[in-house]
This record gives sequence, C-alpha cells and structure tokens, in this order.
Amino acid sequence: MSSEAGTRVVVIGGDAAGMSTASQLRRLDHTADITVVERGPYTSYSMCGIPYMLGGLIDEPGDLVVRRPQEFRDAGIGVRIRAEAVGIDADERVVRVGDSDTGEEYTLAYDALVYATGAHPVVPPLPGARDHARVVHTLDEGERVRVELDRRDDVRRVVVVGAGYIGMEVAEALVRRGLEATLIDMADQVMAQLDPDMAVHVETALKDLGVQVRLGEALEEVRADDGRCREVVTGAGAYPADVVVLALGARPQVDLARDAGCEVGESGALLVDGRMRTTVEGIWAVGDCVESRHLVSGAGVNVQLGTHANKQGKIAAIDIAGGEASFPGLVGTAVTKVCDLEIARTGVNEAEARRAGLDYATTSFTGTATAGYMPDPGTVHVKMLAERGSGRVLGAQLVGTGNVGKRIDTAATWCQLGVTAQRAQLLDLSYAPPFGGVWDLLVVAARRLVRELGLSPVL
Amino acid sequence: MSSEAGTRVVVIGGDAAGMSTASQLRRLDHTADITVVERGPYTSYSMCGIPYMLGGLIDEPGDLVVRRPQEFRDAGIGVRIRAEAVGIDADERVVRVGDSDTGEEYTLAYDALVYATGAHPVVPPLPGARDHARVVHTLDEGERVRVELDRRDDVRRVVVVGAGYIGMEVAEALVRRGLEATLIDMADQVMAQLDPDMAVHVETALKDLGVQVRLGEALEEVRADDGRCREVVTGAGAYPADVVVLALGARPQVDLARDAGCEVGESGALLVDGRMRTTVEGIWAVGDCVESRHLVSGAGVNVQLGTHANKQGKIAAIDIAGGEASFPGLVGTAVTKVCDLEIARTGVNEAEARRAGLDYATTSFTGTATAGYMPDPGTVHVKMLAERGSGRVLGAQLVGTGNVGKRIDTAATWCQLGVTAQRAQLLDLSYAPPFGGVWDLLVVAARRLVRELGLSPVL
Repeated sequence: MSSEAGTRVVVIGGDAAGMSTASQLRRLDHTADITVVERGPYTSYSMCGIPYMLGGLIDEPGDLVVRRPQEFRDAGIGVRIRAEAVGIDADERVVRVGDSDTGEEYTLAYDALVYATGAHPVVPPLPGARDHARVVHTLDEGERVRVELDRRDDVRRVVVVGAGYIGMEVAEALVRRGLEATLIDMADQVMAQLDPDMAVHVETALKDLGVQVRLGEALEEVRADDGRCREVVTGAGAYPADVVVLALGARPQVDLARDAGCEVGESGALLVDGRMRTTVEGIWAVGDCVESRHLVSGAGVNVQLGTHANKQGKIAAIDIAGGEASFPGLVGTAVTKVCDLEIARTGVNEAEARRAGLDYATTSFTGTATAGYMPDPGTVHVKMLAERGSGRVLGAQLVGTGNVGKRIDTAATWCQLGVTAQRAQLLDLSYAPPFGGVWDLLVVAARRLVRELGLSPVL
Repeated sequence: MSSEAGTRVVVIGGDAAGMSTASQLRRLDHTADITVVERGPYTSYSMCGIPYMLGGLIDEPGDLVVRRPQEFRDAGIGVRIRAEAVGIDADERVVRVGDSDTGEEYTLAYDALVYATGAHPVVPPLPGARDHARVVHTLDEGERVRVELDRRDDVRRVVVVGAGYIGMEVAEALVRRGLEATLIDMADQVMAQLDPDMAVHVETALKDLGVQVRLGEALEEVRADDGRCREVVTGAGAYPADVVVLALGARPQVDLARDAGCEVGESGALLVDGRMRTTVEGIWAVGDCVESRHLVSGAGVNVQLGTHANKQGKIAAIDIAGGEASFPGLVGTAVTKVCDLEIARTGVNEAEARRAGLDYATTSFTGTATAGYMPDPGTVHVKMLAERGSGRVLGAQLVGTGNVGKRIDTAATWCQLGVTAQRAQLLDLSYAPPFGGVWDLLVVAARRLVRELGLSPVL
C-alpha cells in the first residue's frame, strides 16, 4: 500500500508486535492516522520479565513497561487502552471496538489493519482449572499472583503445572521466595524444546534447587474449598497447593481474524507472507498470533517471542508504508536461566528433525565453561545435529553453568545461514581461559559431526 | 606426501602447534616415526593461563600443562625435551639438534619437517631491559616471576611495560596480589586491537581497579642497583619498580627456517599455503611462527593464539598423511577479561580497515548486559564496522560487564562468512532477560549500519 496522505491504520493489540508496527509506521509515514486498540491497561511490556517480578528481582510491574500509552500518544500514535476489538468487517474495512469502561461499542474504519492480538494462555477444561488456578501471561495476571503471595500469609505450597520456560522460571522464583514449589508436567521431561538427554540436566538443577519435579503426570483437577485452592490432582497423585499456577503455554489468538476470512496454518496461527500480509487484502498480522517458517525444518511454526514480534512489526510497517522488507523466518533460538544453569537451543532437536524427515547425525559431550585449569571450570553439556550428506548444521542445545547463553547465537547463525559442520569447525572463534578451552565447544561439536558423518576434512 | 611405511617426521617445538601436529599424525599414520624436539622442559601448555597463575587463581605451573612428555611417549610420539634444533639442512633433510643437558649435538633425518617454534618475547635493546626486566612468555618465565613475588618480601611496586592482553592481565593479577602496579605503553591507548574509543573503557576499568596507567610513554631504561631492579625510565618520567615485567608482544621465531630457505611474509612470519606448507619442499610450519590470511582485510597477519595453532597442526598432519585439508585463514577474533570487564573483538578495527583500503561505516552505542529492568543490568559498549556498498560486516568490538565474551563468536562467524548487515539484522538470535534486551546488541548494530549505509531493508 502506498503511503498516501492520511492512510488510516488500525492496530489491534498494544504489546510488542502492535506497538513496534505503530512506532515504525509513525516514523515512515508522517500523515498516517494510526490508532491502536488494546484491551488491557498496558502497552508494550516485557512478558518475559514476569517470573523475575514474582521472584522479587523486579519490584514494580511498571518496571516491565517499556513505554506507556501517553508516551505513544505524545509521539502521535492514537492509543486506546481498555478498548477491545470485537469484530472485523474486511469488506467494509471496519473494526468494531468495545470500550471496557463504558461498555459502549463503536467502529473504526481502516485502510490497513494490523492484527497483533498475541496469544492467550492455555487453561484446560478440567474441574477447577479456570476458577482456582492462576495464569501469569499478562502483567495484570502476574501482578495478581505476586500480590497474593505477598499478602496472604497462609501460602506455603505452590504447584506449577507445565515445565516449559515460564513454568520453570516461576517455580524457581517461588523457591527463592521460600515457598515449596512442585512442578508438574504430563511429558516425561521438562522443557520439550530440548531432547530428553539434555532436559535431564535441567531437571536435576531444578531438583537441586529444591523444586519437586513430577513428570509424566497429567493434570486432572484443581480442588478448592471455601473458594480457596487446596489441592492439585494428577493421574498419579494429589498435591496440596495453596496457590496453583498454570504455565501450559499459550495459543495464538486468531478468532477475529479467522472470522474475517484470514487463513490459519498448520501451527494454528495466522498464515502470513514475508511482508506479514494475511490471506485477506488489507489485513497484516504480526507477533505471537502468526505462523513463521522454520528455516531448518521448513515447518510452519508459532513461536511466541518478542524478538520476532519486534522484527515483524517493523516489516509490516515498512510494507504498509510502501517500502520493501521481508521476514525471512526463524530457527527457534531460545535461551533461559534456571538457577545457575544457562539453557539454550536453536534449530531443530531430534524430534523436530525426525518430524521434518531430515536425515541427521548427532554428537553429545560435556565440556567446561572456562578453561579446565581455572578455578571452578563448571560444566557445559553440548549437543549438535547435522544433516547427513550435506553436513549442514541443523540444531544445537547447550546446558551449562557459564558462557552458554549468548554462545547459542553462533549456532543460530549457522542454522539460519545453512553453514556446514565442515566450515564451522574452521571458524575463528574466540578463546581465553575465562571463557572456555582452546577448542571452542561449538567447534568441537562441528568437528565431531564431520567425523560422524564421514565428511572431509576431518580435523 | 603419501603415508608410506616409516615416514620420518621431525617436529621442532613441543607446544600446542607442534604437539597437535604430532598427535593428529599419530592417529592418521600408525607407521610414521615421529620425533618432537622441544628446547624447554614442558610440552603442550597453556601460555594464556600464565597471568592467572601470577594472580594466584592457579596454584601450580603444572596445572597449565595439558599433557606431559611421557604421556606423548606412551602414545608413540618420540618427545625429546631440553633438545634445541640449531640448524636445518633442507637439501639433505636433516635437523641438527643440541642437547641442553649434555651439550652434545646430533642430527635427525626427516622426510617431513614440521616447524613449530612459536614466537619469542620482544625485549627492546635498551639499557637494563635484558638484564633487569622479566618476561612471562613461557611457563618457566612465568613461574620465575611468581616465585619472586612469593618469596621476596620487599616487592611492593611492579611496572608492566606493554598494555596488550598479557600486560593488562598481569597488571590486574598484581593488583589482586596487593601490589602497586603501573602499566606503561608507548601508544596513546591500551589494547591496540581495539579502536581508541573502545579502548578508553578498558583503560577506565584498569584505573578503577587501582592500576596506574601511563600512556604515550616509551620505555627508555630499566635502572638497577646492586643487581636489583629499582626504576623504570620513560620519555616522560621515572617510576620506582621492585620488579619489571615486559609484555611487549612476541616475534615469530623464523630464523632456522629462513636460513633453510623458507620465505617470510609481510608480517615477519613464515609464508605457508592452506596446507601449512612453507615455500621449501618437505617443510611445514604451524602456530605462532606462521603468517595467516586475514579473511576480512586480505592482509598477511601473524596471530599468536592456541586456537589457530591447534587447527593448523591438525591440518599439517592431515596433509603429511596424504589427506586433504586447508586452513582457511582467520578474522582476528580475540577475547579477554580485565576486572569484571569482558573485552572482545573480531574482524578489522578502523585502523585495519583503513590500511586495507576498505570503504566502511561504523556504528557505536552503549547497551545493557541484561534486560534493562533487571537488577544491575550492566553496560555493554558496542562498535561494528560494515563495508559501504556491499554491507558486509567487517568487524565488531564489544566491551562490557556481562554476556560479551562468547557473543563475539556470532560476529566472528559473520566476518568470516561474509554475512551482510542486511541479513544479520534479521537473524534469529536468542533473547531472555538475564542475557540482554529483546533486540540483541549485535542485531541492533547491524540494523544501525544498514541505515547508516543507506541499504535496504532498513528495519
């Protein structure tokens, strides 16, 4: 769409994806009339910071707000909070909006609609789950749990259901507050993003911290008494619980867009092209509600992460303003910290590689976080996958006590650019005793894969 | 050379480069007769660990020895320590060797000679420098300084001349021992590997630690009295000194090879091809004594680092054994830690870019080491260079309080593989609050460079 004077742009959703679209568009098109409708009270906050708020590392929910509605308004972006989009008419190009305070409904006409509704937390339809368990998906929800933990002096035992990033981070935060935390997952491992042989190191760290970890147990019921949560029942037992937090992931919020005719992909998220256009003319979609191409597996995936949301927002804005930009896809890079353990992954793990029909080899070994002769050299578990035949690096997983987090970005670059293990083993990566041994762990992994795959040269 | 039965291989030098050649060759060729002559008492130790030994982080010099002579002998490698090569006859293919204990000389015949003599520390021909100052280039030398610091109770003030990696690391180690350390360099900045605007952050950290930093002062004399060092004289003043350490870098030891006809390159180190062959038939060279191609500037450079030595050793062995492998060159990746500051660089800095005739743009900015809302988010100074026209990333420099060290490897990969800023800004790099903000600092740098260079797409 060319950026003619007065283009009316409506953005649904005021978090990272929506606000980065609006901000970028404001810079590119001085005459566009930009309106953002956000059903909550906040704009542009860091969802990833919520567990740290629960743990007391961050004092105020406001600290997680990157920019407030008024700041956006001052920049010429019409932000309406507590305003919920309730319908889209793609033919007439209008959005119906409900005002949460007055209950009134009104319409906004658009030339371009940006759909940035994010995802909503999964709450299974089990007895008590909706009424007596908490989720921590929004800042409001996180703050509600924090206030409850701060104010109630009878909270001693907390059960967290779901052992993904957020569940683990919340469980750690609870233990750090002196509470008893039980972490339950129906899978046989924590962190489905890792292969089981790597996830076990994370499980051990959680247990060492004092988290009770119960795997292979599916939630069946949250039991309450006098309106207060008392117990979590799984297929294998019952756990006393003064508070229950569900961290079962989130599903892309696609309803309004789908009702307007936008197609949904294999991941359940909205199909978009590289310019972030949905399948309906005049509607773009960005952030946690869209499907992206996984550049290693080729699969359509829904990855809910601010990094993608921010890039996609900028790209949508460029496209709306008549420029050229394209989101290339992603490789599933992710990192977190549990206790002193840094956990990172990129590309595909074994399960993903199999699903994608990739013929691969793996290497796994354990190294040190610093040179082996330094005091407390620590431990880093390394796993890497490469494709048979081509030698292309398909994925990497790192779990270790230091120099892990940002190291995954090197492997992420390899995965995204199709770098082979043969080339990777000859890269000039950094070395100094505080950061590792003379053979970088990723270089070692590449070298071992070259040998494993029977490729040349074998260093 | 094909690996016929009983190939006689002589390796001169028993540190990383020589021993990795010997070890790899042992694996590839079971019949080769491999002899290593090493003039010192150690094989295969970590030179980079010496400053940490001085600082007391490492107790025993032996801890820095990766593998002892007997271990190599047990693996079928004929290691002779305290055996110094004193001449090469390339026509007759013999090496003359002097035994340091007996004083006797003998010859070793070779089919393949691997020259891995390393580098020797620069000691300028100034009054007192050779007699009264110390160097810490070898484990022996490092140990001698450590024993002196441990045993003499009149050592209070130490002057370190040369503010590169080793000089800075030694100065820090001295301060940690409770000594007064003065660090002197003739350049106007510390760490010539960094641009001045980045080096200043390192200088500040050294000063904050209590190191006296004197820049733009050239060493003129080391004054002694009663055989004991008393004072260091520069062009600008005199500094009392109970011990003086020279950390002025090291020059590749090329004499024997040059005398045998091997050509020396622009860097003063031995010219080798990708297979690590010198210009003389039958002589390979590896490690700190060779010149490598800088893959960004195209210059011939002498980079003394164990990572290259190890790779080059393996490649030479593969070539000697009749296999195929090639050292691709390097991009000058380096990292160190001074106090709590992590310092890393890769590719070219501005001075190197200008010398190489590269038309470049730079971006510099300061970010945080973790998400900005985390407690003590720290500081990371970022600088990146990219080529005008192509957008190719030419170099990066990072100086910061956390999540810096291994992060440089991402930029190193970009530099080595010719990745453009346009592609780099769209890479899927990791994000979580303990490791940085939602926009990775290297991605931000790439994005800023795209804008600066007028390339597309500008995110």
